Amino acid sequence: MSAIYNRVALIGLGLIAGSMALAMRRDGLAGEIVGTARSAETRAVAEEIGLCDRVVGTTAEAVQGADLVVLAVPVGAMAAVAAEIGPHLKTGATVTDVGSVKRHVIHSVAPHLPAGVHFIPGHPVAGTEQSGPRSGFAELFQNRWTLLIVDDGSDAQAVARLTALWQAMGANVDTMDAGHHDLALAVTSHAPHLIAYTMVGVADDMQRVTDDEVIKYSAAGFRDFTRIAASDPTMWRDVFLTNKDATLEILGRFTEELFALQRAIRTGDGDRLFDYFTRTRAIRRGIIEAGQDTDAPNFGRGAVKE
Amino acid sequence: MSAIYNRVALIGLGLIAGSMALAMRRDGLAGEIVGTARSAETRAVAEEIGLCDRVVGTTAEAVQGADLVVLAVPVGAMAAVAAEIGPHLKTGATVTDVGSVKRHVIHSVAPHLPAGVHFIPGHPVAGTEQSGPRSGFAELFQNRWTLLIVDDGSDAQAVARLTALWQAMGANVDTMDAGHHDLALAVTSHAPHLIAYTMVGVADDMQRVTDDEVIKYSAAGFRDFTRIAASDPTMWRDVFLTNKDATLEILGRFTEELFALQRAIRTGDGDRLFDYFTRTRAIRRGIIEAGQDTDAPNFGRGAVKE
Repeated sequence: MSAIYNRVALIGLGLIAGSMALAMRRDGLAGEIVGTARSAETRAVAEEIGLCDRVVGTTAEAVQGADLVVLAVPVGAMAAVAAEIGPHLKTGATVTDVGSVKRHVIHSVAPHLPAGVHFIPGHPVAGTEQSGPRSGFAELFQNRWTLLIVDDGSDAQAVARLTALWQAMGANVDTMDAGHHDLALAVTSHAPHLIAYTMVGVADDMQRVTDDEVIKYSAAGFRDFTRIAASDPTMWRDVFLTNKDATLEILGRFTEELFALQRAIRTGDGDRLFDYFTRTRAIRRGIIEAGQDTDAPNFGRGAVKE
Repeated sequence: MSAIYNRVALIGLGLIAGSMALAMRRDGLAGEIVGTARSAETRAVAEEIGLCDRVVGTTAEAVQGADLVVLAVPVGAMAAVAAEIGPHLKTGATVTDVGSVKRHVIHSVAPHLPAGVHFIPGHPVAGTEQSGPRSGFAELFQNRWTLLIVDDGSDAQAVARLTALWQAMGANVDTMDAGHHDLALAVTSHAPHLIAYTMVGVADDMQRVTDDEVIKYSAAGFRDFTRIAASDPTMWRDVFLTNKDATLEILGRFTEELFALQRAIRTGDGDRLFDYFTRTRAIRRGIIEAGQDTDAPNFGRGAVKE
């Protein structure tokens, strides 16, 4: 495949940027990949494993002459990075990001970008519980969805080119507005993460059930929650602080429903519980049919049949 | 390995009993395995795939001459099965069960068992989201914990023999009292299941986010919840109805903690969120170190790196 961009700058070198670098290099999608990260240790690891063609020390240097700039830092750090790079962007360049929240990122980044630069916010809906420059892999985006935020002012050619890059990295691409993104992701990502963190915290706090027991008997369901609750604390702090309204709305709906089910338990309403538990099976089937999860029991952990 | 029991009767032929049958046959742990199930279709499948040495039509026939009787039916069906088999049990036989709740099962089963029969309630803390006679596999119990409920009246020899069987099937064995079991499992299994069912139900209900979007963007966390929420509705209805107090206690603690985190989000208390999310990582590490889950990203779904 021929290069889609001559020079790509990756700001931040964690799971997502690292996976992008590996996917782009696998298929020659970028003429040159320049990367930077705030932490000297991260930059050193990136150098050591050859993640990029060049690792540089500042964001200003990284975006020099870049056709595509990818902001891959925690959502709370976007504004500062945008302010740094604004004066150094090439006219005609595209700036995108990979943040899990979109309205806040747009408010943080857009004001710092000069005229003649195309800003197309993005979000690859893919990841693992791991983080850092060693956690990336080229297949991360395969058959996952990347969401691009477009409006009437978006440059059609720039959107088409960024879409082509994501597709070449294996992703499907949808476009939507930022508000809808933030609500949809509050449902499929933000609320589930907070709930998982909470459940793991409660288990850890229980004085009458030891951590040792919680660990030993985790195969009965709890261990699924711990994977999500092992995700990067900085990233998730920022997500909740910057997608406050949508997350709190979904958590409100969740609590309402949880109370209704608690009431069914208390009153012994078995029919209501049975019907509810039957309905939720359908969503699982849909996810498997759409290729968004494996149908192997226990996610096929370890072996086909663990 | 030589047989630990001459004749084992399996009442119910779902995931757990099926896996026990396969594990016992693999290592010759039972002289003969006789199985039965209420549904004619389940019995026919068990015959077809050769799950047991003999499949019979009634529980009375199944327990005839059995040294070990395993009650592997939903918790809500235990009392009726115990009443059926009581008069047909061999003196000196051991009766155990594999229910996820222990106090209720003891109240349901014990009154129906004649003197001279050893009742040792049990719970293999293992499973998948699948159910039915085709879902079993011999490795299900490997490195998982089976909990046996013992008290001062338990027959030491009978406990030792049942322990040997579970260990031969690959499990670790702990003993504890029924009340502690029901609380510990409310934490590691029952509350997490209800929470997962609730979150999946909420997603399915959201009018402003379509099911199609929920499915496509599920890789951001939500899909982990759908595996648990695809578990057998009958089994789980019975668990919640029969472990009401402990489940409601843990859900109460969960809600309290969720409200505290929601408040931290609302007030923008990033430090509190960050500290909480850092603490929960430790439990995940413990689970991986104890061999209770894989350390591969995303549970190693599909491939090593999906």
